[in-house]
Amino acid sequence: MFLIPVGVNPPVRILMGPGPSDIHPRVLSAMARPTVGHLDPYYLRIMDEMQSMLRQVFRTENELTFAVSGTGSAGQEATVMNLVEPGDAMVVGVNGVFGGRLADMARRAGAEVTCVERPWGEVFAPEDLKDALANVKPKVVALVMAETSTGAWQPIEEISQLVHDAGAMLLVDTVTALGGIPVEVDRWNIDAVYSGTQKCLSCPPGLAPVSFSARAVQTIMNRKTKVHSWYLDASLLASYWGDDRVYHHTAPINMTYALHEALRLVLEEGLEECFARHRLNHEALAAGLGALGLHFTAQQGHRLPQLNAVRVPDGIDEAKLRRRLLDEFGIEIGGGLGDFKGKVWRIGLMGFAARPNNVLLLLGALEQLLAAEGHSFDHGAAVAAANERWREG
Amino acid sequence: MFLIPVGVNPPVRILMGPGPSDIHPRVLSAMARPTVGHLDPYYLRIMDEMQSMLRQVFRTENELTFAVSGTGSAGQEATVMNLVEPGDAMVVGVNGVFGGRLADMARRAGAEVTCVERPWGEVFAPEDLKDALANVKPKVVALVMAETSTGAWQPIEEISQLVHDAGAMLLVDTVTALGGIPVEVDRWNIDAVYSGTQKCLSCPPGLAPVSFSARAVQTIMNRKTKVHSWYLDASLLASYWGDDRVYHHTAPINMTYALHEALRLVLEEGLEECFARHRLNHEALAAGLGALGLHFTAQQGHRLPQLNAVRVPDGIDEAKLRRRLLDEFGIEIGGGLGDFKGKVWRIGLMGFAARPNNVLLLLGALEQLLAAEGHSFDHGAAVAAANERWREG
Repeated sequence: MFLIPVGVNPPVRILMGPGPSDIHPRVLSAMARPTVGHLDPYYLRIMDEMQSMLRQVFRTENELTFAVSGTGSAGQEATVMNLVEPGDAMVVGVNGVFGGRLADMARRAGAEVTCVERPWGEVFAPEDLKDALANVKPKVVALVMAETSTGAWQPIEEISQLVHDAGAMLLVDTVTALGGIPVEVDRWNIDAVYSGTQKCLSCPPGLAPVSFSARAVQTIMNRKTKVHSWYLDASLLASYWGDDRVYHHTAPINMTYALHEALRLVLEEGLEECFARHRLNHEALAAGLGALGLHFTAQQGHRLPQLNAVRVPDGIDEAKLRRRLLDEFGIEIGGGLGDFKGKVWRIGLMGFAARPNNVLLLLGALEQLLAAEGHSFDHGAAVAAANERWREG
Repeated sequence: MFLIPVGVNPPVRILMGPGPSDIHPRVLSAMARPTVGHLDPYYLRIMDEMQSMLRQVFRTENELTFAVSGTGSAGQEATVMNLVEPGDAMVVGVNGVFGGRLADMARRAGAEVTCVERPWGEVFAPEDLKDALANVKPKVVALVMAETSTGAWQPIEEISQLVHDAGAMLLVDTVTALGGIPVEVDRWNIDAVYSGTQKCLSCPPGLAPVSFSARAVQTIMNRKTKVHSWYLDASLLASYWGDDRVYHHTAPINMTYALHEALRLVLEEGLEECFARHRLNHEALAAGLGALGLHFTAQQGHRLPQLNAVRVPDGIDEAKLRRRLLDEFGIEIGGGLGDFKGKVWRIGLMGFAARPNNVLLLLGALEQLLAAEGHSFDHGAAVAAANERWREG
């Protein structure tokens, strides 16, 4: 009878899907450092430093900036649950899976949700939201900045102006955005923002960075009803992550070590340099994918460098090709979600994965496997096109 | 200006507080293995194996047995939120901090909560619950098996009989219990149970093992209202952890590696052997603490081996002594929570920490520091008393 399985010895993968992305070795090493108590003076220092680094990466002075002890979805739910109370009006932009999830969470929190929709792969212009703002007079408007299901890059700044002119607060999903493209929490006047560790921060999943503006904090502190979840109640978490360090729950110590190291890596490189690296490697990959005859799903001019969603060519068994990439090359790319299931590949260039080595390897492997499937294209052109792009710098 | 802090290099601690406990080196090593995708065939196998091992440790055949992607408190809230709907009656036994927290979570979930109280350090006899069961006719009764704030060991079996005779379901907190004392989910007919990784499983905090009986699952699937939290909705999590592996959220991959290895360690040792080790080392510690003139807070006959709560002697500055233990010996023990703040020390002998080395070191260090504080006792007697206990076997 099966009783005790053999120990964990994972295959070494090249993670180019929608996340988790390649983890930097320094992050894995930090995560395995000796565990200390969650109220140990050393851990309190690590918490302080992590909060300070998160503020730098979110580009905010927000006092209430910390990491929720769960994955990105926990951070998503924390921001939604804390900002709305039963009966509050909320507008959610839905142009992919994660906007839909925001709406689901908001309804569970008791909000009266109005969804504004755009086709998958497209983004919202300010005028798309005008009617909803006027009709619903929402307390909160929520948008996904980097839609991981479609690869669409949602501009935030202008919409934020409109949302605030209408008296609402702005909540933004930056799970796939943070560390890959500029996220300007203060400059864009974002009231609540959440992210995850396993995308452009090159850290394993397990924590969800969040930040709340002073206005959002005031709203939370003046709630008439308790937040449905004790675990995600920001008024309690503010005391744990504030100067008092009032015991709430036992934080995931070693995950915090990992995120601390991941944030150090981003700041050592420099945020602008990090964004430029994502952009350049994306352009090289895009040139190569174009040479293979693959087409992006996201609207031109609004493509995320870190999440490249392309249509599967006609006649290709997409699951089989992905499985061969995994089995023969150790490369993981993602399939489609929701409306895009079976129709789209999602290629991540996030954090440590956003480098020429990964791009070249993937293009070479795709060329081999697409040719075997009878897909026709100019052999050798993909790598040449990518190399040409890097040469231009 | 402070920009990038130095890297994570924690001091090496001996964790004898209320958790996290000492982490086994094999667990830290497993956690640092290469991250794979959360839908990678290898990861799906690790999930299966982890579920199978959790069933063995919980002593259950429950299909819906998995780890919530958060710390123990997330598991606690998940069990509460899923079992009750707004307006449902729930009875909670409160004899410490964590019973009180259960009641708070249940009220947030909309339940009509009736608290039955016992003094801190004491436990519930079946007759303590009879009136509440008859008057309230609850849907759920919740008890804390190992009250981490007091060190009291709550017997479950007889009460379970009574709860089920009254038609209710039984929810049990085993955060500090699991792996340290017997938890018999099936034999005791427990409907929902949650635990944490950072206590007797010798694993860092970050996951919350849970298990639901067939009756609990049926209750969840027949809910009239959606669970308030999308992240903790067991009907969605059942699809992710079930045969279909329907994508829900990105699981904390490396934390799962750690828990996998921690469970392997427990099963390699054998559950009964593991319980016996906790008991023997507790008895040795208790003999030593007695020789130092320290008195347990928990009711005689109901003391947890893994959490030894003792009253701070008169005239001792408890925080100063704990700080000296940490600074001079690297030993962490816990202070009191809630009603016990400033009055109690909580000494953990959990998992890898439950061994003679830790007991001897702590007794020696306590003797030195208590003597320096002018506390009077028979010098050398503590270590002698502990050694005497081990000699008896």
